[in-house]
Amino acid sequence: MSRKADEKVSIIPLGGVGEIGKNMFVVRYRDDIIVIDCGLMFPEEEMLGVDFVIPDISYLKEHQDKIRGIFITHGHEDHIGALPFVLRELSVPVYGPRLALALVEARLKERNQSFPVAPVYVTAGQKVRVGPFEIEFIHVNHSISDVLAMAITTPAGVIIHTADFKFDQTPIDGVVTDYHTFAEYGSRGVLVLMSDSTNAERPGYTLSERQVWQAFDDAFRAAPGRIIVATFSSNIHRIQQVIDAAHNYGRKLCMLGRSMVNVAKTASELGYLSIPDGILVSEDELNKHNDDRMVLLSTGSQGEPMAALSRMAMGSHRSVSIKRGDTVIISASPIPGNERSVGAIINRLFKLGAEVIYEAVSGVHVSGHASQEELKLMINLTRPRYFIPIHGEYRHLVKHARLAREVGIPEERIFIPEIGSVLEFDSESGRVAGQVSSGTVMVDGLGVGDVGNIVLRDRRQLSQDGIVVVIVAVDKETGVMLGTPEVITRGFVYVRESEEFIEAAREFVKRILTQRRSGRIPTDWQSLRGVIRDSLASYFYERTQRQPMILPVIVEV
Amino acid sequence: MSRKADEKVSIIPLGGVGEIGKNMFVVRYRDDIIVIDCGLMFPEEEMLGVDFVIPDISYLKEHQDKIRGIFITHGHEDHIGALPFVLRELSVPVYGPRLALALVEARLKERNQSFPVAPVYVTAGQKVRVGPFEIEFIHVNHSISDVLAMAITTPAGVIIHTADFKFDQTPIDGVVTDYHTFAEYGSRGVLVLMSDSTNAERPGYTLSERQVWQAFDDAFRAAPGRIIVATFSSNIHRIQQVIDAAHNYGRKLCMLGRSMVNVAKTASELGYLSIPDGILVSEDELNKHNDDRMVLLSTGSQGEPMAALSRMAMGSHRSVSIKRGDTVIISASPIPGNERSVGAIINRLFKLGAEVIYEAVSGVHVSGHASQEELKLMINLTRPRYFIPIHGEYRHLVKHARLAREVGIPEERIFIPEIGSVLEFDSESGRVAGQVSSGTVMVDGLGVGDVGNIVLRDRRQLSQDGIVVVIVAVDKETGVMLGTPEVITRGFVYVRESEEFIEAAREFVKRILTQRRSGRIPTDWQSLRGVIRDSLASYFYERTQRQPMILPVIVEV
Repeated sequence: MSRKADEKVSIIPLGGVGEIGKNMFVVRYRDDIIVIDCGLMFPEEEMLGVDFVIPDISYLKEHQDKIRGIFITHGHEDHIGALPFVLRELSVPVYGPRLALALVEARLKERNQSFPVAPVYVTAGQKVRVGPFEIEFIHVNHSISDVLAMAITTPAGVIIHTADFKFDQTPIDGVVTDYHTFAEYGSRGVLVLMSDSTNAERPGYTLSERQVWQAFDDAFRAAPGRIIVATFSSNIHRIQQVIDAAHNYGRKLCMLGRSMVNVAKTASELGYLSIPDGILVSEDELNKHNDDRMVLLSTGSQGEPMAALSRMAMGSHRSVSIKRGDTVIISASPIPGNERSVGAIINRLFKLGAEVIYEAVSGVHVSGHASQEELKLMINLTRPRYFIPIHGEYRHLVKHARLAREVGIPEERIFIPEIGSVLEFDSESGRVAGQVSSGTVMVDGLGVGDVGNIVLRDRRQLSQDGIVVVIVAVDKETGVMLGTPEVITRGFVYVRESEEFIEAAREFVKRILTQRRSGRIPTDWQSLRGVIRDSLASYFYERTQRQPMILPVIVEV
Repeated sequence: MSRKADEKVSIIPLGGVGEIGKNMFVVRYRDDIIVIDCGLMFPEEEMLGVDFVIPDISYLKEHQDKIRGIFITHGHEDHIGALPFVLRELSVPVYGPRLALALVEARLKERNQSFPVAPVYVTAGQKVRVGPFEIEFIHVNHSISDVLAMAITTPAGVIIHTADFKFDQTPIDGVVTDYHTFAEYGSRGVLVLMSDSTNAERPGYTLSERQVWQAFDDAFRAAPGRIIVATFSSNIHRIQQVIDAAHNYGRKLCMLGRSMVNVAKTASELGYLSIPDGILVSEDELNKHNDDRMVLLSTGSQGEPMAALSRMAMGSHRSVSIKRGDTVIISASPIPGNERSVGAIINRLFKLGAEVIYEAVSGVHVSGHASQEELKLMINLTRPRYFIPIHGEYRHLVKHARLAREVGIPEERIFIPEIGSVLEFDSESGRVAGQVSSGTVMVDGLGVGDVGNIVLRDRRQLSQDGIVVVIVAVDKETGVMLGTPEVITRGFVYVRESEEFIEAAREFVKRILTQRRSGRIPTDWQSLRGVIRDSLASYFYERTQRQPMILPVIVEV
């Protein structure tokens, strides 16, 4: 396809910029759309009770007829996690590498769903033509196997999306990021580069996954008893290294945690993991082997309270009790927000007598994302006319933009994107050409999008100072109060020790309702509820400096 | 005092070990007690609605007659913050450096309290004798002025408590940590060293406070407009550096945030801060000066939502709107647990167009605590017979204990303390000789200790899925239900969009109560409430996969 000067292509981020996770990008040329990635995000601290967050796809629903496919770069939650929800709404084909699609399929099965259209497995080097787009898949290194960057050739020019990547000179599977293809596109001319900003604050180069080997080897050599390694179940290369280390030291291996077992099964079936015969031991057989012959590979490296590692630390795991002689290796870095829960687990493990090896004091983890020098290298290889930093908090996008400036991309050709912005490019210029519906949708249990600001505001208030329910029975004929008001509290004060206090509050409400006869208090129920609420709020604040939610209920009988 | 071989002294940590904050240590010799520090701790994530946490002092109340004084090492919250509460219970003298006691006094005044006994101001080099103890105060460097380590001479030997310290070779006030006195005690013989473990995971040496100067100077030179520096209000040396930098570059300075204004006032009155004449500008006069002539010094470096920096980032500060050209320097490191809120502020400031300089990418902050080489130096200087790592999470205590091993303290002479343990020492041996009442007391509003596990469990449930209140009116004579049950929810589903759902729940409750006549449902109210609760819980879980708190109320009329 030759590029025409007046052709325009648009890029619309529906997620993945200015936040951690939830990647989704739209590429649109006239009436054809492809979507790159479809991820979820874990809730912010203030999203109380929310399970996770997915992108608002109203734009895609509106343009469903134009969508030629969803292209998945790799199998991490922030790139695939929203697919079960999105595929309920959009009946479109999904393209992606085999491992990622196998993980998606497992996720769909859990929800009694299946792909609405047969998925298309793609591999590095392959080219796929959909509508006016030709997409070439390019191998990159990352912390999961089978990650594909994409070069999307459009009538307006080539767009490169790096996926999550780093340049690992000595990757575990021996296949380095495909410099040559990036370079070839760079030589021929790239219109837009969209590149992973996660580590844009880190100077230098990210260490090779193989560096972890040395740290593992040291730990395995020194360990007198059981070795427990916690890592992400999706980090196939890391899992391979643990398997290899166990094999080297003649130890058996047991996988703990549902996702670890499932992912390892999928990955080994597809040939991404090589597991020596006879090395695996099931959880039931754990105690048949001596401690110094066992390695346990566990979930929970982020301090997730229900995961295997957390249960071991709390002493509530059904098969493993931590004891002196155990060596626990936490082979992961806490995602922002998880530092404190991971720290609490480390403290507990030490207290139970285990030796604990973790990132702050060792080399048992390396990042899967490119650092500053690698990010500059990617820009220099692809020589894009326009640059869009993606995948990161706003501060990471800003830093990545500065790196692009440093390697010579002029400021006016760098676009720090906002969610929903339509970034339109042609060979002469780039611009923000509009805004589409976009944002985040909260998922809580079975509810998708029904939890909004009002529900969260209520949960926030309830979480801080609890609730006081005041029940007043009133004769609906005469308007006369029947009996004494009831006052029930939860999460406000400890009820058993506050009987007098609650009794005084009942009397207080009674006084308000007695005054009512004199006409000083409104006689309609709505206003009366307001009066009870306001007076009790002051009453409680003065005595406790707490502000519980107050719920007055008037029962007419 | 000469040491007698059979004399014993006990050290009892009532806080400050295995946690972040809340320092409090008891030293007891026979019937005499002194207390070192009296700090608070900020609540753990799961302590919903709790304002802060103080030590359980039932042991001290029980032995009030034996307490000869509370000795304060310095004016940080985790060393002084619990004093207002403790001094309500214990009428004992407080000893401490002038700045710390001035900060305590201000805190007491806010609560309409005063010292129950006249406080005693002490300075480095001074010796105080109380009961059988002679306490010498020793100057150390830290991130606040006027920090005093203590050498406590007892009939059983000398105990050294390092306070929070580092060895700064070029401190801002020119006075280095008093090597000589530590060394002299080391030569004469130290029974026990209790040393600050905060940075026991960090290799090498902590950088000098003066290193920050270069980073400030670079930032001030480059800043085209306003400069906003956020730091801890207690970090007097840092504030001095900001003042000096402002003065150097001919800028005026404005303090923002109540605690910044108050602490700066106290510190400058006492001579700990030197503020050039005419440099200060009040918040009202801010706009009388050009942006490139202004420095704002602000609270909120930890992302505290109500502090000045957070308000600026949210666009809700009454006098300052962030704009392009502003340079914001966050001169602090996030305390574990605050990473995400600090990150959110950085993102917002960038988005508003400011340049943001923060720890991850610059040298605008250094720690106030000693790193590994300094910790080893402290042990080598004091040459203690016994070693107790204090002030840190359990993992820090473990690492600090290992450092002590490395410099030659035998394992059996190192005690990783638990809160409430009685560590008893004589010249021959040390042992855990018992356990006293101890723990944490939660403060919520005016309530001290009334919020416990049940209240927190309720807040937790309320925060996740909200509450459903079900009100049933029943004729108390006949037991017949009057009218239709009421169902009210908060924080569970969005009420306006769930009318049908709520209506169905009312009908469901009605059915349960109708069944009751057939005798299948218990007739006593308590059991009936249980039945309503359980049936509705299943009903809601099936339909929403949420588990709100369900509060059935039966109103007898």
